[in-house]
Amino acid sequence: MKIQKVLMSAGIHGNEKTPIFLLKKFQEKTNLVSRSNFQTETLIANHKAAKLHQRYLDVDLNRCFSQEVLNNSNTRYYEEILAQKIKRQIIESEADFILDFHSSSSNMLLTLLLSNDSPFNLELAAYLADKNPLVRIVRTARNIEKNRLRHLFPYGFTVEMGAIAPNVIDPIWFERTEDLVRDILDYLEKTNQDRQPKSPKTATIYSLTTPVYFPTNDRGEIKAMIHPDLQGSDYLVLDVGQPIFINFDGESIYHTGNRQAAIFISESAYFEKQIAFYLATKEEIAV
Amino acid sequence: MKIQKVLMSAGIHGNEKTPIFLLKKFQEKTNLVSRSNFQTETLIANHKAAKLHQRYLDVDLNRCFSQEVLNNSNTRYYEEILAQKIKRQIIESEADFILDFHSSSSNMLLTLLLSNDSPFNLELAAYLADKNPLVRIVRTARNIEKNRLRHLFPYGFTVEMGAIAPNVIDPIWFERTEDLVRDILDYLEKTNQDRQPKSPKTATIYSLTTPVYFPTNDRGEIKAMIHPDLQGSDYLVLDVGQPIFINFDGESIYHTGNRQAAIFISESAYFEKQIAFYLATKEEIAV
Repeated sequence: MKIQKVLMSAGIHGNEKTPIFLLKKFQEKTNLVSRSNFQTETLIANHKAAKLHQRYLDVDLNRCFSQEVLNNSNTRYYEEILAQKIKRQIIESEADFILDFHSSSSNMLLTLLLSNDSPFNLELAAYLADKNPLVRIVRTARNIEKNRLRHLFPYGFTVEMGAIAPNVIDPIWFERTEDLVRDILDYLEKTNQDRQPKSPKTATIYSLTTPVYFPTNDRGEIKAMIHPDLQGSDYLVLDVGQPIFINFDGESIYHTGNRQAAIFISESAYFEKQIAFYLATKEEIAV
Repeated sequence: MKIQKVLMSAGIHGNEKTPIFLLKKFQEKTNLVSRSNFQTETLIANHKAAKLHQRYLDVDLNRCFSQEVLNNSNTRYYEEILAQKIKRQIIESEADFILDFHSSSSNMLLTLLLSNDSPFNLELAAYLADKNPLVRIVRTARNIEKNRLRHLFPYGFTVEMGAIAPNVIDPIWFERTEDLVRDILDYLEKTNQDRQPKSPKTATIYSLTTPVYFPTNDRGEIKAMIHPDLQGSDYLVLDVGQPIFINFDGESIYHTGNRQAAIFISESAYFEKQIAFYLATKEEIAV
């Protein structure tokens, strides 16, 4: 197991300023992210959106890394063309490990969204979760579309930090993420020296399944908000009967499905799609 | 002292969803905001921005209520034209008391930004602050431009609730603000019955003075973030030597000016203007 080249990216969403400024720091102080036995490259993905302080111009860039979009030569959407350009850069650079930094307005702490559930990804993620109580590990369930930047890579993950509002540089999450990056790069360096650090035997993994939408009236307007007991409680496991919404009359709406955790609760970027939160199955797996 | 008509407004900024949905509730359940001896009107100000989930389309609507903009018949900016339309509606409706609801990504709790420092505004605000530990009272310092919606009214205030990220309906602040509205309307009803509730003899008032900008390099790029000791600590009084920024090398930058409080710290909407926070002098005044 050898890592050749790490790509560290931020600004896939132009309004996520904490990751963008962390990456700028790494671009200026390259010694922080260089190691003896692999290369590190950096990418601020959507400069145009960052300059406008918007998530995107035409479409969400981090939904554009599907084969369908990447192979569509007829698109005129700014982010679809940008995704194709980034894909070509990645092929050229031969980067095999991704660290794609995002901030979330939800209480995602330091969530690692794995590029896939290869043994190496699980070992590294389990090591980090064991070391750092803020770390959570999420993988994409089998049947879910793989259209994020991370899905182009054999190894690595998206890092979601927060809660941070859009267009905020949060110094506390900035430092926590910088510490996490140091741990990850040190781990990779040791792995390349055949001294891969030991991971715990098991890890708690969340498998991202489906979005849950806000209840709407017959005009398509949102008619309930997240229940106060759930607001801010990302990774809470919902049992049947757990209140998840409260309508504007003060009546609660309860969880009825399988036992699953709620994540990305009230994420500001998902409001336009009326997504209230995502469900994820929680399991303890052998690493 | 009689109040004729209360205007309750939200959506001056289209991405501030908690106030917008609170106002929608009041529009559906008018009994919650109607009282025996004055009228209540509601206004969702910028529907177009709300639909796009943006703060504004062309310019910030809540900087358009200056005499200069209101009298400029040549403007083509959407929000400047909208401000002129709202001004005409207000004159027609003869509303004399404003409650303009906003959310902030800063820890503003329930901040009342007074339309002016008339004795009645101070009495009401002092009453509310005495009753509710979340309430803070802010007025605009004398020499500062008066260009907000509230400045068109003899009585009332802007309510800033938060911390809430843009495009989030926060159920906890929703309920707290609803409770505040009930207290305000009850107070006005009693005042109109010559039974104005007693206020405390003194109140803590913050007078908003100047913005403090992020430090920048010679290319105009932000080169430091809010210091972790200040992040999230709105209303902290800055003494000389208090660390206010930290640059990306980890060096602190210290407060050097007068003893003043910091508010609107890291407000996401101000990032585009590179405003890090606002200063406000804190004083205890007789009511």
